[in-house]
Amino acid sequence: MSSNKPSIPKGTRDFGPEEMAKRNYIFNTIKSVYALYGFQQIETPAMETLHTLLGKYGDEGDKLLFKVLNSGDYLKGINDEELRERDVLKLQTQLCEKGLRYDLTVPFARYVVMHREELQLPFKRYQIQPVWRADRPQKGRYREFYQCDADVVGSDSLLNEVELMQIVDTVFTKFGIRVDIMINNRKILAGIAEVIGEADKIVDITVAIDKLEKIGIDNVNEELHNDGLPEEAIAKLQPIIKLQGSNDEKLTVVADFLKSSEIGLKGVEETRFILDTLKNSKLKNEVDLNLTLARGLNYYTGAIFEVKALDTPMGSITGGGRYDNLTGIFGMPGLSGVGISFGADRIYDVLNALDLYPKEATTATQLLFINFGEKETAYCLPMATEARRAGIRTEVYPDKAKMKKQMSYANAKGIAYVALAGDNEIEQGKVTLKNMSTGEQQLVTVGELIKKILG
Amino acid sequence: MSSNKPSIPKGTRDFGPEEMAKRNYIFNTIKSVYALYGFQQIETPAMETLHTLLGKYGDEGDKLLFKVLNSGDYLKGINDEELRERDVLKLQTQLCEKGLRYDLTVPFARYVVMHREELQLPFKRYQIQPVWRADRPQKGRYREFYQCDADVVGSDSLLNEVELMQIVDTVFTKFGIRVDIMINNRKILAGIAEVIGEADKIVDITVAIDKLEKIGIDNVNEELHNDGLPEEAIAKLQPIIKLQGSNDEKLTVVADFLKSSEIGLKGVEETRFILDTLKNSKLKNEVDLNLTLARGLNYYTGAIFEVKALDTPMGSITGGGRYDNLTGIFGMPGLSGVGISFGADRIYDVLNALDLYPKEATTATQLLFINFGEKETAYCLPMATEARRAGIRTEVYPDKAKMKKQMSYANAKGIAYVALAGDNEIEQGKVTLKNMSTGEQQLVTVGELIKKILG
Repeated sequence: MSSNKPSIPKGTRDFGPEEMAKRNYIFNTIKSVYALYGFQQIETPAMETLHTLLGKYGDEGDKLLFKVLNSGDYLKGINDEELRERDVLKLQTQLCEKGLRYDLTVPFARYVVMHREELQLPFKRYQIQPVWRADRPQKGRYREFYQCDADVVGSDSLLNEVELMQIVDTVFTKFGIRVDIMINNRKILAGIAEVIGEADKIVDITVAIDKLEKIGIDNVNEELHNDGLPEEAIAKLQPIIKLQGSNDEKLTVVADFLKSSEIGLKGVEETRFILDTLKNSKLKNEVDLNLTLARGLNYYTGAIFEVKALDTPMGSITGGGRYDNLTGIFGMPGLSGVGISFGADRIYDVLNALDLYPKEATTATQLLFINFGEKETAYCLPMATEARRAGIRTEVYPDKAKMKKQMSYANAKGIAYVALAGDNEIEQGKVTLKNMSTGEQQLVTVGELIKKILG
Repeated sequence: MSSNKPSIPKGTRDFGPEEMAKRNYIFNTIKSVYALYGFQQIETPAMETLHTLLGKYGDEGDKLLFKVLNSGDYLKGINDEELRERDVLKLQTQLCEKGLRYDLTVPFARYVVMHREELQLPFKRYQIQPVWRADRPQKGRYREFYQCDADVVGSDSLLNEVELMQIVDTVFTKFGIRVDIMINNRKILAGIAEVIGEADKIVDITVAIDKLEKIGIDNVNEELHNDGLPEEAIAKLQPIIKLQGSNDEKLTVVADFLKSSEIGLKGVEETRFILDTLKNSKLKNEVDLNLTLARGLNYYTGAIFEVKALDTPMGSITGGGRYDNLTGIFGMPGLSGVGISFGADRIYDVLNALDLYPKEATTATQLLFINFGEKETAYCLPMATEARRAGIRTEVYPDKAKMKKQMSYANAKGIAYVALAGDNEIEQGKVTLKNMSTGEQQLVTVGELIKKILG
């Protein structure tokens, strides 16, 4: 028996009914908001050719790809010499021509290139599918997890950035999660590096600035010194390190700082347009310019955004940005876009931590007919059908089990109402309806039962 | 460039916006009916251990499993001698310890065993996820496709069978697809084989009977003869071959035929209960006893069902049955169940062939604001926000493109209404709303616009 004991691969998860109900609530909420803004769903295959996947995520990413063994004689075409060499990197591309998708961005780029003739640009797509990474599993990091991406490609307009911020605001308002929406711009960061003459130190600089509140300005400057920044550059950087105030105040300081940098001023202008346009759209959450935001610097080329929950500690729960040349890797140049990705697993944890799931989202069955035997059940079945026609999620307990067992089934599933029919009820053409939370019982017709439950 | 030209693995598919809208309509309809009957969704990982998968689908199935190459040094633990032998079947379990799921039944059995402490029996679960098979791709057969299963485990009651028939009837009624629901019982087939003394010929017999209408009784009898059935057995079988009439009439004949077979009579009794109970539930489609139905004979132990569309030729679009001992393969005996599986790909084709998709299910954006420039768009954005608050799926064209381009975008996406605002509209605080199908234009406030579109 112990050799039969089943398990699942490490880093993967089963989702039971309650987890699925919560996950569906999250995905359905995000989907409905994406749809409200005209985004359309696509799906791509779990397996992509290794030709599509390899070389897109760096050497480390290539290692983390799950490769799928070729079917049939997978050793055909590999000679003994090659086998003996045991070059696992080289051999794997002979053993495998397919891999599991690592993210949704590369498959999307591949999709756009393959379907460019059918696509109407700008193309607003969303995609909610699992991805797989052979990462070392640890708390909160899985080998299979869902990504939840929306992108607009084929439009350079900053209105797309504005819209994505509105989407973020709407989604988290629907969830009841208060968030800080942080925005930055790759061009501003490039400008800062240009002005102080330290283009390659931009990540060190943002990391150091990020610690200001925690360690104070002297320690920040010391860290910059240790990072190898000359004193002159550190001195120049002071207005940026000390940057505070409203978005408008910050932008004024930054614009002055960047007055000699063409790319830097372009970043200021873009950011100002996005923030100004958002002023009129009455967001429920704050959008803050945050120069320490440095996600995806080798990928994003314009606006960068990131979202954090205000009321519970949890890293970034949503992020995104503007990129150039999504499809260049597949030989189709010139298509830029802007995208966003909701972190479903972390949002799940935040909703749990703050106890924000609406009750309706997680209750399954609303009404259970107790089974007293064949005759009684035959009497109940048409009533169950009527209740379902009225939209009530209804079960008839299938077995004539002990009352206690049936009631504990109702309790375990969180069923709000139980209906009972014995000789007395049958004679009167009615049913006894029990409210499981109050214990209250009433003799009712099926019409009354429906009214009662639909409230 | 040609070496960059991307492709997807054979037998896999991309689903674009329109296909996804249709697929979502199918899945959401089925989900909503499952939920109405108290079924709850679960999901299991795409990868299972090969230990879980191998040996569950026969030798052919083992070959069709996609295996996932181990991460890191996958040759570690394989010596030179073993490599030289090139025993691909043996080596693959050393190279790979995981595979992609082949169906939803084995992962479900594995799930039930692993989670048995948390499960409330009877457990009514549904699961809608892709499965992967290294089958030779051909028309209508894919290497990645969705299954759409519901099962009740831990209850022997025939009310579960009744309920699954109601679910089938409700789902296809919602789709507008007229179907024939066919029902049979493994025990009746076993009884027939027992009575004529030919237990191992039951598949040949059902196959031959199935041809009655096409080839006539003489040819059926000849085929049975060629299958090696003795004349005496063929003579005995005549009442079954000639079986016709209503379900009740058929059951009377079959019960008489099976009067010496205990298992056969049990099958008759089960079938009679299911059909009698269904008489009171006012199904929209016919349920027919069909003794030629022989799906999954090595798996199913009681009722068997299959559904065919009446108005377009297409094989079985839904099927299922009662099985014993789902979890025995994982060392947990005694759990029986009954399940059903909707064939989403075929239902998709039927809905297309009969043009049955509701318009609302496949329309995305309802309203597009035309972009005349920065000032005009700034005026439109708050109106777009209001429209979305009212639940209207709304886009603002992001770029100041030529009018013709924006209008053709609206046409290509099937957007019903377009809103335009120039100086004249802005002055009056209104917008011109154009109905794209009638061409009718009206000058309206945003409130009027919302009323107009929501109709």
